[in-house]
Amino acid sequence: MDVSRRDLLKSSAAVVLAGALSRVGLAADDPLPSWNEGRAKRALIDFVHATTDPQSATFVPQGERIAAFDQDGTLWVEHPMYTQVVYCLQRVPPVVKAKPELANVEPFKTVLSGDPAAIATLPRNELAKVLAATLTGMSVDQFEAEVQAWLKDARDPRWKRPYTQLTYVPMIEVLNYMRSKGFRTYIVTGGGQDFVRVYADKTYGIPPEQVVGTAGGTRYSYDRSGRPFLTKDPKLLLNDDNAGKPEGIHLMIGRRPRVAFGNSVGDRQMLEYTTAGAGKRLGMLVLHDDADREYAYGPAEGLPDTKVGTFTPALFEEAKSQGWIVISMKNDWKRILF
Amino acid sequence: MDVSRRDLLKSSAAVVLAGALSRVGLAADDPLPSWNEGRAKRALIDFVHATTDPQSATFVPQGERIAAFDQDGTLWVEHPMYTQVVYCLQRVPPVVKAKPELANVEPFKTVLSGDPAAIATLPRNELAKVLAATLTGMSVDQFEAEVQAWLKDARDPRWKRPYTQLTYVPMIEVLNYMRSKGFRTYIVTGGGQDFVRVYADKTYGIPPEQVVGTAGGTRYSYDRSGRPFLTKDPKLLLNDDNAGKPEGIHLMIGRRPRVAFGNSVGDRQMLEYTTAGAGKRLGMLVLHDDADREYAYGPAEGLPDTKVGTFTPALFEEAKSQGWIVISMKNDWKRILF
Repeated sequence: MDVSRRDLLKSSAAVVLAGALSRVGLAADDPLPSWNEGRAKRALIDFVHATTDPQSATFVPQGERIAAFDQDGTLWVEHPMYTQVVYCLQRVPPVVKAKPELANVEPFKTVLSGDPAAIATLPRNELAKVLAATLTGMSVDQFEAEVQAWLKDARDPRWKRPYTQLTYVPMIEVLNYMRSKGFRTYIVTGGGQDFVRVYADKTYGIPPEQVVGTAGGTRYSYDRSGRPFLTKDPKLLLNDDNAGKPEGIHLMIGRRPRVAFGNSVGDRQMLEYTTAGAGKRLGMLVLHDDADREYAYGPAEGLPDTKVGTFTPALFEEAKSQGWIVISMKNDWKRILF
Repeated sequence: MDVSRRDLLKSSAAVVLAGALSRVGLAADDPLPSWNEGRAKRALIDFVHATTDPQSATFVPQGERIAAFDQDGTLWVEHPMYTQVVYCLQRVPPVVKAKPELANVEPFKTVLSGDPAAIATLPRNELAKVLAATLTGMSVDQFEAEVQAWLKDARDPRWKRPYTQLTYVPMIEVLNYMRSKGFRTYIVTGGGQDFVRVYADKTYGIPPEQVVGTAGGTRYSYDRSGRPFLTKDPKLLLNDDNAGKPEGIHLMIGRRPRVAFGNSVGDRQMLEYTTAGAGKRLGMLVLHDDADREYAYGPAEGLPDTKVGTFTPALFEEAKSQGWIVISMKNDWKRILF
C-alpha cells in the first residue's frame, strides 16, 4: 500500500468515526428522541432543568422529585376498552366454570354470550358484579397468578400484540428521562392497584410500591397448615379517579407531585393539585388526535366523543387557563407504539 | 532535643495513632456499636449478610429488600402513653378555645380538668371523640403545622426532652445499617400515618411515602380563591394494627417485607406475614425489661402488665415456635436513649 492510499483510508476512517460519534452524541444529548421539537418537548426539558440544576432558582431536592403518571391513555392504549375491563370480561368463563350456577344469572349470562353490543349496554351496577367476581374473593397471590397468565396469552385485536406492548414509546422515554434526573415515577391510575402492580415493574420500570390505584381492602387469615394469607375483599378503600387521585396521592405518597401527566377528565384534579403547589410545577395532557397511528377521541378539538378517556372542551379550557401543556400525539410524537 | 527523646516522641505518636486507627477500624467494622454481642446482634448481622452478599444462596435483589418497623415501643418510647395520644389530649384546650361550646361537653370537660385519673377512665368511644376533634376536620397542611408546633414545645415528663429525641439509639443503628445495605426502611405503625409523617424523615430518615399507619380519608375541595386543598375526614380507611398491619403493607407497599421489628401483640400478624414468605426472613421483638434505663412491661417474662404495648406470654411462645428473636433491652443494648 502506498502512502497516499493509506492516508486516504485513514482520513475516511476518521470521517466515518466522526459521523458515528456525532450520531451517538446527538442521541446522548437528546433524552426524548421520539418527540418532535416543539412546545411540549421544550416544556418537559425546561422543567427538568429548572428543578434539577443545582444552580436553578427553582431547584427541587431529590426526595421531593415526584412525578405522577395516569396509566390508561397516558402510558398505554385505552381504546376501544380499558385493558382491565377486557381482563374482567375474559375471566368470566373460567369463573363460571368454577361456579356453574352463575351461567344463567345476569350479568354473567350476557358476558358469556360474547355479544359486544349486549355487553356494551350492561348498566354500571351489573358491570360492577363482573368486576367483583373477577377481581375479589381470591388470595392476593392467586390473583397475581391469574393476571400474569392472562397477560401472557391475551392479544389486542388491532395490533395482535400482548397488551403490555401497547405502551407509548415517547412516554417510556419521559419515564426514563425523569428517573435519570432523580425523579421517582409513580403511576396514579383509576385502574386497579393490584392489577397494575402485576406488570408495572417489567413494563414501565415502576415497582409495586410506586403504583397508586383504585384499591379494595384485603382480609388476613390462615390456611389449614397455619400459613397466613390475604384475601381480596370487595370493600372499596380508594376510588382513585377524579378527586380520588389527589386523595390517593396523599394516602399513598404523602407529598404533592411536582409534575403530573394525564389525558382525560379523570386526571383534572390530579393536575390541579400538582400545579397548585409552590415552586416550579408542570401539568401535561395527552390528546388522542391520531386515528391512523393510534386513535382519535375528544370531544375537545372537534375529535369524536368517547366514554373511555374523555377529553372535554372544558378540560381543554382549564388546561389553557392553568398553563398545562397539551401533547398532540399526531404532531408531538415521531413514533407512538413499538 | 536529643535523638533519643525525639525517637521516643515519634514512637509514642505512632502508638497513639495506631490506637486511634484501631478504634476507628473497630467502629467502621461494627455497624451496631450500641448492641452487646449476643444472639440478637448476631441474628441481625447474619440476616443482612445472607440477603445482601451476592455469593449467598439466599441473596435478595435490592428492590425486594424491604424492612418494616413498628414505631411505638420499637423505635421510640411509648410509655407511660403513646405520644400521639398525649398530642391529642394537649390539643384539646386550643380546640375548645376555637369552639367554646365544647367546654361543658364530655369527654372534653374531663380532658380539660387535667385530672389524669379521670382521663384514664374515659371509655374508648369517648376517647375516639377526642381523637376525631384533634386529628380531623382541618386541612392536611394545617394539621402538619399544628403537629410541628406541638413537637417543638412538648416535653416528655421523665426526660424533659422533645418526644422526637426519645428514639432508641440501637434501633437507629439498625435503620442506618439496613439502609446502607440497600434495604428500604418502612415504618408500619398503629399510630396515625399523617402524624408520624410529620417528623419521620428528620427523626428516622424515613420519608413520608415510607410511613404506613392508621389512615383516614381526605376530601378534595377548593378555597375561595379556587386553590385546591385536602381536608382530613373522620372516615377510617385503614386501622394499621394487628391484622391491619399486613393488610396495610399490601395496600401501601404491595410486597412482603423480608424483615420486621415489633414489640407487642399488635405486631404479631406483621411478623407472621413477614416470616411466612419464601427465602431468608427475620422477625424481631423488642422486650421492655429495663425499668432503670427505660421501662419494664410485659406481662411476658414476669414483667408487670400494661395496656400500652402489651407483650403477652402467648406472643413469647409464638416467638419461640416461629424462631423470632426477642431483643432484651436490658441485656442486648449497651445504650438505650440519647
